[in-house]
Amino acid sequence: MAGDLQSWVLMATARSPTNIAVIKYWGKRDEELILPVNDSVSVTLDPDHLSATTTVAVSPSFEQDRMWLNGKEISLSGGRFQNCLREIRRRARAVEDEKKGIRIQEEDWEKLHVHIASFNNFPTAAGLASSAAGFACLVFTLAKLMNVNEDYGELSSIARQGSGSACRSIYGGFVKWAMGNNANGSDSIAIQLAYETHWSDLVIVIAVVSSKQKETSSTTGMRESVETSKLLEYRAKTVVPTRVSEMEEAIRSRDFASFARLTCADSNQFHAVCLDTSPPIFYMNDTSHRIINLVERWNRSEGTPQVAYTFDAGPNAVLIAQNRKAATLLLQRLLFYFPPQDNDLTSYVLGDKSILNEAGLQSLEDVEALPPPPENKDKVPHKKFSGDVSYFICTRIGSGPKLLTDENQALISPVSGLPK
Amino acid sequence: MAGDLQSWVLMATARSPTNIAVIKYWGKRDEELILPVNDSVSVTLDPDHLSATTTVAVSPSFEQDRMWLNGKEISLSGGRFQNCLREIRRRARAVEDEKKGIRIQEEDWEKLHVHIASFNNFPTAAGLASSAAGFACLVFTLAKLMNVNEDYGELSSIARQGSGSACRSIYGGFVKWAMGNNANGSDSIAIQLAYETHWSDLVIVIAVVSSKQKETSSTTGMRESVETSKLLEYRAKTVVPTRVSEMEEAIRSRDFASFARLTCADSNQFHAVCLDTSPPIFYMNDTSHRIINLVERWNRSEGTPQVAYTFDAGPNAVLIAQNRKAATLLLQRLLFYFPPQDNDLTSYVLGDKSILNEAGLQSLEDVEALPPPPENKDKVPHKKFSGDVSYFICTRIGSGPKLLTDENQALISPVSGLPK
Repeated sequence: MAGDLQSWVLMATARSPTNIAVIKYWGKRDEELILPVNDSVSVTLDPDHLSATTTVAVSPSFEQDRMWLNGKEISLSGGRFQNCLREIRRRARAVEDEKKGIRIQEEDWEKLHVHIASFNNFPTAAGLASSAAGFACLVFTLAKLMNVNEDYGELSSIARQGSGSACRSIYGGFVKWAMGNNANGSDSIAIQLAYETHWSDLVIVIAVVSSKQKETSSTTGMRESVETSKLLEYRAKTVVPTRVSEMEEAIRSRDFASFARLTCADSNQFHAVCLDTSPPIFYMNDTSHRIINLVERWNRSEGTPQVAYTFDAGPNAVLIAQNRKAATLLLQRLLFYFPPQDNDLTSYVLGDKSILNEAGLQSLEDVEALPPPPENKDKVPHKKFSGDVSYFICTRIGSGPKLLTDENQALISPVSGLPK
Repeated sequence: MAGDLQSWVLMATARSPTNIAVIKYWGKRDEELILPVNDSVSVTLDPDHLSATTTVAVSPSFEQDRMWLNGKEISLSGGRFQNCLREIRRRARAVEDEKKGIRIQEEDWEKLHVHIASFNNFPTAAGLASSAAGFACLVFTLAKLMNVNEDYGELSSIARQGSGSACRSIYGGFVKWAMGNNANGSDSIAIQLAYETHWSDLVIVIAVVSSKQKETSSTTGMRESVETSKLLEYRAKTVVPTRVSEMEEAIRSRDFASFARLTCADSNQFHAVCLDTSPPIFYMNDTSHRIINLVERWNRSEGTPQVAYTFDAGPNAVLIAQNRKAATLLLQRLLFYFPPQDNDLTSYVLGDKSILNEAGLQSLEDVEALPPPPENKDKVPHKKFSGDVSYFICTRIGSGPKLLTDENQALISPVSGLPK
């Protein structure tokens, strides 16, 4: 092992995106290996707005593997962390850093411990697939540090063992998680369907919905659905395969009408299966329903879909607009029904704020002056639901994991080996 | 025709119950004849608390068929009314009232017009299957007045053409609507599975939930589900047939655990299919979800179901407790989480108020003194949702349609031929 001084610290830092499924993953056929009952398709979200950044450091002075998430130490004893660490260590190769005079032999990795620091640039508890970004980033960064020579498909299958949907965060753009057939999960990997540049018109608006209820974790929910839902197997075996093919074609041909129809239908069917579970699982609440109704009403009045919606295991809406024009009209509608509770618009609409400007919304007065959407023909006065949405994030489809070479971006001090 | 004076009025008055499906009817295979895609099973609710009363009067002086619902004249031009009137008239037979000196020949009925007055003893708009009670009562009363000599199965198939679920209100107790196979619907009839006395332990508590949203009518909703849900056909053809058999056996053997499991699962699956519809249909709201969670948590903590829940095409919960003891414990839980908004307990819990007394709830102070349910282990303080339930109705399983012979109960004046 290198240079014989116990004090060296070698590090790698990377950033990985989160992703949102447009054909949903719900149900495992193998709990341990995290093998799904159907293929799924996702879009990767722009890491500028939603991503995990992870630094992995190695040093002969580290006495055990340790991890800090958003500055707080967390346990690595869980099987999911252990699976990822074991699978990457198994593939670790010799590393030489001439400048630092460090040389690590392949066999050294088994004895060396790592310190991991990870940070999400969005609220962890908000139900925005933080574990997808987190495990993708952990695996990607470990692989870089340990000089792992595997293709991204192989890395995705390791990330999958941390959190199923994490495998899809190994790529940018449009991604399919092929369920695979092998019992050992070797062919249950992510495949990139298209780069993020393939369909750059799309604009994404996320409504982070205030939730008063404790939600069922997706791991527990999935297991209960597999055990009790009479509809899940039919969905997985009969409905999803056709939808995945149609979705691939819709993405390939940038056919927004089909993309939106499939995205909305599959989100709703996933929540239908949750409701068909015993005890039933409710992830969407009245606010989620209101957002769906708003979008459905508008899409119908336009004759062709302007916006697709999809909801994961929580009440937050992920809204995909076909272009910037549709996104500005969407934002106007959302802010009409869900105005900010306090006076600060800039902390209510996060991410790509340029859409706010394009929507002509610079101040709270602009929001208050918004006319009711013309498609709402109800005779009753327009109800507003201030406080039901915590905030919005405007973003787009983004790129996959990226190594950050600037040492200033590392989350661990090269001197102490601890989080900065 | 009788006595030659133009002034006579002959009347019949009857009362018919509403019913709640425990295996749901959702989806028609024939829109015109109202033929369902699957069998359904219901319990008939006590007409003392939820029923329609209908008077049908006939007189040579009436110039057209007319109807008043809850005192307001409504149009009879709809196909559903016309179908019921036509089918009963077709089967009308000679009637003789010696005391009044009235004789109507079979062939006279085609020329005679009727006045119909109907009244629900519960709010029509509350989503409590008023059309089931109403059409059952219309058909039953017309049949009595016109001396129709058909068995109840035949009457049920006529009521079915007014409103599908009305066919099940032709009987008391436990009722199955057999979907039938014939294209003309002749075998799509209701069958009584058991009298109301068969399982008299059961106690029913209905929570009428405040709804802020306009709901999709069940006719529209069903049609959209048949057209767009990928799960409906699988449910109808594969899931429901087994459930109906199991439900019949659970009723036969008064097996509450199975009855509750099937009732809850089928309610949830019906709402799952609604959610799988495009655009999705949301009948349950956050309050409905809270009631389900309350019941599920309690049932689980007891190890065996105490209460079953079921929801029709709206947010109201119909809760079926296995006995009076469970019903009092249920009412305590419901009132703990959903206390009355104003000070009047007697207008908040309607129907069989004796359960209130057994629950030790005589005043608002008693409600305020209720301890939190022991099964709620949440660390957070118990949230209360005053105002989210409009009122409760305590009732039981009840009897089928009944002729009211006391002329004072008639809704039409024998002199004017108009509503009293």
